[in-house]
Amino acid sequence: GCPGVLAVLGLEAAAPGECELTRLLQDKLQYEMRLQYMKHYFPIDYTVQVQYEEVLRPSNITRLRNGTVSEAALRYLWFHVSSQAVLRIHEVLPEKHPSWKYTQELYQLFDALGEEYSKYRQTDVETVVADVVKLIHSAGAESRSKAVRPKALLDNCLKVMRMLYGVPCELGTR
Amino acid sequence: GCPGVLAVLGLEAAAPGECELTRLLQDKLQYEMRLQYMKHYFPIDYTVQVQYEEVLRPSNITRLRNGTVSEAALRYLWFHVSSQAVLRIHEVLPEKHPSWKYTQELYQLFDALGEEYSKYRQTDVETVVADVVKLIHSAGAESRSKAVRPKALLDNCLKVMRMLYGVPCELGTR
Repeated sequence: GCPGVLAVLGLEAAAPGECELTRLLQDKLQYEMRLQYMKHYFPIDYTVQVQYEEVLRPSNITRLRNGTVSEAALRYLWFHVSSQAVLRIHEVLPEKHPSWKYTQELYQLFDALGEEYSKYRQTDVETVVADVVKLIHSAGAESRSKAVRPKALLDNCLKVMRMLYGVPCELGTR
Repeated sequence: GCPGVLAVLGLEAAAPGECELTRLLQDKLQYEMRLQYMKHYFPIDYTVQVQYEEVLRPSNITRLRNGTVSEAALRYLWFHVSSQAVLRIHEVLPEKHPSWKYTQELYQLFDALGEEYSKYRQTDVETVVADVVKLIHSAGAESRSKAVRPKALLDNCLKVMRMLYGVPCELGTR
């Protein structure tokens, strides 16, 4: 790595606990598993209803970075959006569905990551991100909902995770 | 059995091939399998779109019997409605879905039953039934569509099968 460049780019270091958990998430989100549990085990064209703000794509991160949102705040945003997305998928599955255990294990990893993020105080997080997170967790905002395939939600989750943790956590590109 | 009573009720005998196949269908449609493959392996509240005429309930059979439709014609109707229902479910499943093989095996049994039914000439079937069958197989009738849970389609399929084949094929009540 090259810490000098990272400092210039404003990439705050991720905590060791965060890196360990994102590596576990990366393993669980590998292509074969996403394909099997999120596509093959669902009806063709099946979608879940999520709020508009719950879809976080690489392009959103690029835009927010250009708006000089800190890396810590972006990771915080990704964490909230992704754990919510996993919950949405988990909620539509009966306990005996073959993807149920997979989504539960994913959610447990996010839960553990939440412990790490509880270290960030809300005041440390830029207003723009805090506002989006608040919106995600607010009820009654369902009017701006969107139908998204389960696999697409996890595809975005993984892609954005690689953008945000790839360098500081040395995630590799597998 | 008591053939005298059956004759009075107008229950034409089912062919031996029909009885064998309906016994195989009854085994495949047993509660545990319907529950696992049609409920546990689907998202909660998942429905398939079917045409209004593709839902055939015991009450429909009672009504048609009172209108003196022959038992052979009712079996013919049940066959068309049920094989179409199985096809609708099969079509929404990716090949690697854990319910895919189950619905394919069901469809193969209906396919074999179709061979038996090809013995009936269209003219033998009462107009009321032939019209419903034609409607089911016509395109562009999608406007009167209905959202039905996969398990509900197979529940109806089994219940009506027992009404129509229970006595002539001695299906038992398991």
